[in-house]
Amino acid sequence: MKLRSFLPMLLLALGANAQLATKPALTLEAAKKIAAASEAEARKNNWNVVIVIVDDGANLIYLQKMDDTQIGSIDIAQGKARTAVRMKRPTKALEDAVAAGRNALLTLPGATPLEGGIPLMVGGKIVGAIGVSGVQSNQDAQIAQAGAAVLAQMK
Amino acid sequence: MKLRSFLPMLLLALGANAQLATKPALTLEAAKKIAAASEAEARKNNWNVVIVIVDDGANLIYLQKMDDTQIGSIDIAQGKARTAVRMKRPTKALEDAVAAGRNALLTLPGATPLEGGIPLMVGGKIVGAIGVSGVQSNQDAQIAQAGAAVLAQMK
Amino acid sequence: MKLRSFLPMLLLALGANAQLATKPALTLEAAKKIAAASEAEARKNNWNVVIVIVDDGANLIYLQKMDDTQIGSIDIAQGKARTAVRMKRPTKALEDAVAAGRNALLTLPGATPLEGGIPLMVGGKIVGAIGVSGVQSNQDAQIAQAGAAVLAQMK
Amino acid sequence: MKLRSFLPMLLLALGANAQLATKPALTLEAAKKIAAASEAEARKNNWNVVIVIVDDGANLIYLQKMDDTQIGSIDIAQGKARTAVRMKRPTKALEDAVAAGRNALLTLPGATPLEGGIPLMVGGKIVGAIGVSGVQSNQDAQIAQAGAAVLAQMK
Repeated sequence: MKLRSFLPMLLLALGANAQLATKPALTLEAAKKIAAASEAEARKNNWNVVIVIVDDGANLIYLQKMDDTQIGSIDIAQGKARTAVRMKRPTKALEDAVAAGRNALLTLPGATPLEGGIPLMVGGKIVGAIGVSGVQSNQDAQIAQAGAAVLAQMK
Repeated sequence: MKLRSFLPMLLLALGANAQLATKPALTLEAAKKIAAASEAEARKNNWNVVIVIVDDGANLIYLQKMDDTQIGSIDIAQGKARTAVRMKRPTKALEDAVAAGRNALLTLPGATPLEGGIPLMVGGKIVGAIGVSGVQSNQDAQIAQAGAAVLAQMK
Repeated sequence: MKLRSFLPMLLLALGANAQLATKPALTLEAAKKIAAASEAEARKNNWNVVIVIVDDGANLIYLQKMDDTQIGSIDIAQGKARTAVRMKRPTKALEDAVAAGRNALLTLPGATPLEGGIPLMVGGKIVGAIGVSGVQSNQDAQIAQAGAAVLAQMK
Repeated sequence: MKLRSFLPMLLLALGANAQLATKPALTLEAAKKIAAASEAEARKNNWNVVIVIVDDGANLIYLQKMDDTQIGSIDIAQGKARTAVRMKRPTKALEDAVAAGRNALLTLPGATPLEGGIPLMVGGKIVGAIGVSGVQSNQDAQIAQAGAAVLAQMK
């Protein structure tokens, strides 16, 4: 994303009344690297999980189910990833709010307010999210975080 | 199921690069025996229920509705069976967690967190689940358990 | 998968009153290899597609979306894979039947009767399916077939 | 249905202004016998199918999936049974109408206009339907018919 993204930004800076923009974006290659880091964290702990990566439109880029993971986690991991990108925050924030008594959040359409979904951010912009399900929610989040951490090294 | 499940596992261990696996599976014959044991437990107590058995992919193998059971139990029993196999645990665990205040679990996609769904396990692997609905949840679970117990004698 | 699948079948035949069965199963490792072969076929032709692999219960094991693929293909590829495993035949058979005038097939619950979904078989048993969407349906099927062909070499 | 149905009808005739009625009804026992006859017909031909029996409210009484039946047939057999009872006619009538060009029937809410669903009638009243799926549609219907035929001998 060197030259190709530099030029539009330059032009954007020059064009005082620019009406179009560029946004950073995940690629399948990036998603696979993020997922691989999460899978490594899971295997290190002998945990079986589903790992999901969605883009900034909450649409699936990547999903993998490790052997013997409960099949319910396929939908839950997707729900966590979608919720993290749609609400632009870790799903733990929503789970904590519900736990604190804000049950009204349970009505958020299509939301999965369970820890284990983490937004993927680049330069302050959201590019997607990772969702993990299969073990304890805080362990799911630990696996998701290992994947999200990889993004910082990307360019 | 002694020899038959032991040999594949042995061969699996020997095949260093095994990419395919084998897994134990229910048959219709097994499902009918499990359901018959559950029905006997229900009749012994003069209880009318719906009894459902799903496979490891949460797909229906068997369903029967005893006369005079409330028709809402048709969907609830299926929901309990599907939830038990999808979450690989008795649905009572989910009902208890919700009762203890983890309301966020109410958003699990398609889940029925009500006691009365029990996973069916063979050699540590999940082969399906049984779900029962029609009387009190703990009575539903008692009926489901009577069916699940039959699996241990099968081969 | 020679010896390993032969022995259980032999034992099954010997056990006159067998109530449980064994069945071959995909692993994540197998799914990744199948998907990699499909992705290679797509890249060779400069095609961008979504590749989906489901297990024998029509549950997701693996999904990847190549860059710039239309996002509608995420659901379509899943639909094709699910339909192929649920109907135990290539989705082309359904598309052809509809094209020949059997419009009633359009009402099949949840079916996606579009070419590009292919069952994955091991020793005559279905272990899952691959679904591809993104280019012309016959090209989608060509990509799916390249993945399915890898299964024959697995054990 | 000799005495048990005769007396209410007698009383009904005596009560000049009767506002309530009785209706013949399937029992689980009847459903199991109907399904057993269908299963026997299927086994005789080495066919694997899903057999479904619903009551006059289109609600499930009984479902069984024979081993190795495609899992898509679980929903299709239910759809056929529900459609037969809801429309009070064999689903073949709907399939024929669609085949004759009446595509508007494809929009019937929740309908499965595919041969293999047959109403179960007692004394001119509908008491439910049987739906079968798994082989060719006319073979599905043959299996369903074998079950429906059993009803005539019941009393």
